[in-house]
Amino acid sequence: MLADLRRWLIGPPLPTERMHHERLGKAQALAVLSSDALSSTAYATEEILLVLTLAGTGAVRLSLPIAAAIATLLFIVASSYYQTVHAYPQGGGAYLVTKDNLGRLPSLIAGAALLIDYVLTVAVSISAGVAAITSAFPFLYPERVEIALLMVAFITIVNLRGVRETGRVFMVPTYFFIAVMYLLIAAGLYRIATGTVPPHVVQAETASTAIQHLSLFLILRAFASGCTALTGIEAIADGVPIFKPPEADNAGKTLLIMVTILSSIFLGITYLSYHFGVLPKEGETVVSQIARLVFGRSFLYYLVQFATALILLLAANTSYSDFPRLSMWMARDGFLPRQFAHLGDRLVYSNGILALGFLASFLIILFGASTHALIPLYAVGVFISFTLSQTSMVLRWFRLRTPGWYIRAFFNGIGALATGIVLVVIAATKFVHGAWIVLALIPLLVRMFLAIREHYDHVAEELTVEKRPPSPVKKHTVIVPIGDVHRGVLKAMYYAQALGGTLKPVYIDLNPKRTERVKEKWERYFPDVELVIIPSPYRSVIGPLVEFIDANIQEEGQYVTVVIPEFVPAKWWHHFLHNQTAWALRVALLYRRNWQGRFRILTSVPFYLKY
Amino acid sequence: MLADLRRWLIGPPLPTERMHHERLGKAQALAVLSSDALSSTAYATEEILLVLTLAGTGAVRLSLPIAAAIATLLFIVASSYYQTVHAYPQGGGAYLVTKDNLGRLPSLIAGAALLIDYVLTVAVSISAGVAAITSAFPFLYPERVEIALLMVAFITIVNLRGVRETGRVFMVPTYFFIAVMYLLIAAGLYRIATGTVPPHVVQAETASTAIQHLSLFLILRAFASGCTALTGIEAIADGVPIFKPPEADNAGKTLLIMVTILSSIFLGITYLSYHFGVLPKEGETVVSQIARLVFGRSFLYYLVQFATALILLLAANTSYSDFPRLSMWMARDGFLPRQFAHLGDRLVYSNGILALGFLASFLIILFGASTHALIPLYAVGVFISFTLSQTSMVLRWFRLRTPGWYIRAFFNGIGALATGIVLVVIAATKFVHGAWIVLALIPLLVRMFLAIREHYDHVAEELTVEKRPPSPVKKHTVIVPIGDVHRGVLKAMYYAQALGGTLKPVYIDLNPKRTERVKEKWERYFPDVELVIIPSPYRSVIGPLVEFIDANIQEEGQYVTVVIPEFVPAKWWHHFLHNQTAWALRVALLYRRNWQGRFRILTSVPFYLKY
Repeated sequence: MLADLRRWLIGPPLPTERMHHERLGKAQALAVLSSDALSSTAYATEEILLVLTLAGTGAVRLSLPIAAAIATLLFIVASSYYQTVHAYPQGGGAYLVTKDNLGRLPSLIAGAALLIDYVLTVAVSISAGVAAITSAFPFLYPERVEIALLMVAFITIVNLRGVRETGRVFMVPTYFFIAVMYLLIAAGLYRIATGTVPPHVVQAETASTAIQHLSLFLILRAFASGCTALTGIEAIADGVPIFKPPEADNAGKTLLIMVTILSSIFLGITYLSYHFGVLPKEGETVVSQIARLVFGRSFLYYLVQFATALILLLAANTSYSDFPRLSMWMARDGFLPRQFAHLGDRLVYSNGILALGFLASFLIILFGASTHALIPLYAVGVFISFTLSQTSMVLRWFRLRTPGWYIRAFFNGIGALATGIVLVVIAATKFVHGAWIVLALIPLLVRMFLAIREHYDHVAEELTVEKRPPSPVKKHTVIVPIGDVHRGVLKAMYYAQALGGTLKPVYIDLNPKRTERVKEKWERYFPDVELVIIPSPYRSVIGPLVEFIDANIQEEGQYVTVVIPEFVPAKWWHHFLHNQTAWALRVALLYRRNWQGRFRILTSVPFYLKY
Repeated sequence: MLADLRRWLIGPPLPTERMHHERLGKAQALAVLSSDALSSTAYATEEILLVLTLAGTGAVRLSLPIAAAIATLLFIVASSYYQTVHAYPQGGGAYLVTKDNLGRLPSLIAGAALLIDYVLTVAVSISAGVAAITSAFPFLYPERVEIALLMVAFITIVNLRGVRETGRVFMVPTYFFIAVMYLLIAAGLYRIATGTVPPHVVQAETASTAIQHLSLFLILRAFASGCTALTGIEAIADGVPIFKPPEADNAGKTLLIMVTILSSIFLGITYLSYHFGVLPKEGETVVSQIARLVFGRSFLYYLVQFATALILLLAANTSYSDFPRLSMWMARDGFLPRQFAHLGDRLVYSNGILALGFLASFLIILFGASTHALIPLYAVGVFISFTLSQTSMVLRWFRLRTPGWYIRAFFNGIGALATGIVLVVIAATKFVHGAWIVLALIPLLVRMFLAIREHYDHVAEELTVEKRPPSPVKKHTVIVPIGDVHRGVLKAMYYAQALGGTLKPVYIDLNPKRTERVKEKWERYFPDVELVIIPSPYRSVIGPLVEFIDANIQEEGQYVTVVIPEFVPAKWWHHFLHNQTAWALRVALLYRRNWQGRFRILTSVPFYLKY
């Protein structure tokens, strides 16, 4: 029944041979990988304005140069990543690139930072998307956590079904958002050109006087806040292998297209907001205010709102490509449990997808699906990985010195410098509001990665056949614990006799009368095999059995087989009607450490009950 | 660590030989077995008065004859049970007596009724005791469920420690209650004799006019309500085996002493309440009102309240002797899971004690520790068992005709008739208020008992050696699933080779490159054993393995041993770092039904990891 539900939800298993066909064309890949980056245009402008208005309405004029600076940074980082895409066609995530050029510890820092950020992307985007919906339909507000969790479940299932379906599901909404935003900007510019902008009343609450002076720190903080526009642009560089071949070329072109779309929407929104004199206000986003001024409360206005909510929900989907892929790479390197490297039924890394779904749901519950509570933790991880990745690329060019390396090194160098500065600015301005959590979590995760790797190294070392080949069987003792003489025990005894070692059936004496009956029966069926009877003054069965077995493992190279007759009831509730002695004995023996050279084998002889 | 906590809570295990010494003298046994019966004096008078006042204050004068009738019934039932104690020195619970004389179905009805009532005794007594405490300390009222659950946990642990300690713990409070009640009655009678009774103002709310006519039905209902005084008097007859030898004589004497104490306190309280004109009122019990009139708000008044609360809590303890004993008897007869017949570490039936603790806690949570919600369910079960048990005794005397049998049959006959009539009265008057729940539950429980017994009968039938002796080993195939070639696999292979059957090592091909490496290694260590390689296009390991194993079980009398190399990690969290393939394979094979004559054996070869 569970298997049926699973098949209905995620579809039948796909054979490994279909693996290569599950690739995406540029248009589909753009839809899958760019929603995170594009969705940030929904709030990046607002974040800049929110900081600037702290210095009064007059400071808002600085939004244009700041947006221009961020757009420049966007192109710097993109050209830097363009180099990465071509240098690492197998997927140029910060973890792989840093491992390749800076070594283990920096790569683990990048890995930890990215894993945290992927989880945050899901939590933040879903929360923001749900907030957009609940702003339009306030009666849904009390159910926001439940709605957010349903969204996470939906995206998780879609991703478990496989990458091709993902591309198909998300193409329409992504291009719909791009089209709607371009329409909004074009209509806005037309209104400005024709001078038909309706009068905009600035509300008293937002047009208040300055709380802070317009310091350099405040300008930097506004710039840092706007840098959320950059989150997600690394997705294409990470995801090169999901492109159709030639992967690198397709990915590089898609990256440039994506950055062009992203910066034009971002600059357009910022320009319109400045020109219309729109300021952030409680209960309505900047984008919504602009759309209302341009379209009025028409069908087109609601279209903008709907597209914005949708792209925010889809942004979460980007992490469902990145998180499983990164955890797969780290698992292959032994820094995460091996299960993350297993290709699931539908040719996706199901364990990574499930882990991401669970972690994001946990964050959503913990922070009550509140975007405001989550935002300060966000973007720190991304800029750590940006900086480490670009620095790695610089080192790589200096090492390889391929033709034209100095130009590439220059691009990556500028990228590293820019993102490094922004990282310091973000960490400094967001530290007290929540960035400290991420900065504290990263070393803990790195420690965990190292502990996991250490365990795998130890295991590999212990399993090496070359060093200490195990001792072959020199002596074989077969112990059969029995609780009665019945058909199940007879089968177990026939089997034990066929094994050919020294046979020692054993019975625990709890009740002298019962013991007498068992002895009599025993002598009828096995007159030539001596039954060992062990008294148990404390009425424990497991304790005396384990002691007896231990006492029989004495010699180097001795193998002791414990043959356990085991009932298998026909119905689940029948388990409660039988003592779980066989199970308890197995657990007691399996988890009892063994000593060098001697060996304890556990054999279950199942007896299937028909009723 | 868990074992340490367990030992600290319930003490070290006791050897079986100490079993006989864990008996109680009459004084201790009275303390352990009579608290349920004695505690009912705290509310029985009030229950009578509550019904009578429905017909107006004038009807209260009937409380004296009704109390006298109940006291007479008490002596009738006690003399009936006195016969039972001597006829059944091994414990004369209604279940055993009914089984012996009326047969299976009536005995199961008695068993179900009693088990329900034992659980209710714990829930009702603890709830009433907590209510007494929270009346004195109202700030504890919001925590009443938690306090009740703590009480249940405390009594459960005391009982898990063993019967001797139980006697010691509960002796002081029981005798303390008896002494305080006698003091109260004596002081009250002295006040009446000397004419120094303080004036008692009857409150307007209770002294209201009649709501109902004083019908025969109402008088019967008042009588039925007062019959709660009888709950618990069967405890001594059930618990004969915990008395010091001679068990029957000691138990019989204790029963007569207990009934004398119980009826004298009950009559004394009823007489004082009538003489002082005390009526039930909201927020203060009848006993509390009497104590206040006799002692004023002195230290002695608080002593009465404290002793009352304490005896109510201790009443719950009686069930901790009865429930585990009855469930043990029913388990021995195969009507309850066998685990209830197991003597625990401390020579008590721990599973019954734990089950009672859990069920009572469940009731307390379900009914919010409210005595008023629980009371209508109570006493139905007791009177069902009374009636069945006395009827059985009558049949027994007619069957055995031992000397003086007609006198004994007369006592038991009067008992059966009286309790039968009371049962009908209780069921009729309490039906709509909750008695229907118990009356509906009893047939469900009886059905469960029969289903359990049927299962055990089937199993015994299947296990009979005489009918179909199992086929001995004709052919032996040994299958070794491997995931790699390492020290653990080498050990498993050495072992499998020593077993002497046809050896078939098998490897699941998930990745051609890896398979090549494994093949190479294999040929280095086992050049003369062919490794079966099975392709798995859907990347499943368990599925193809199970298919291969099934395909190798073809012949009648064939035994197939699956030798599973199994890691045992050193630390618990290391389990998450390994695929649980060995475990999953074991579960898949163990719960896969087998067919007649062929046999699948599961062998774990553990490899203990040091790190």
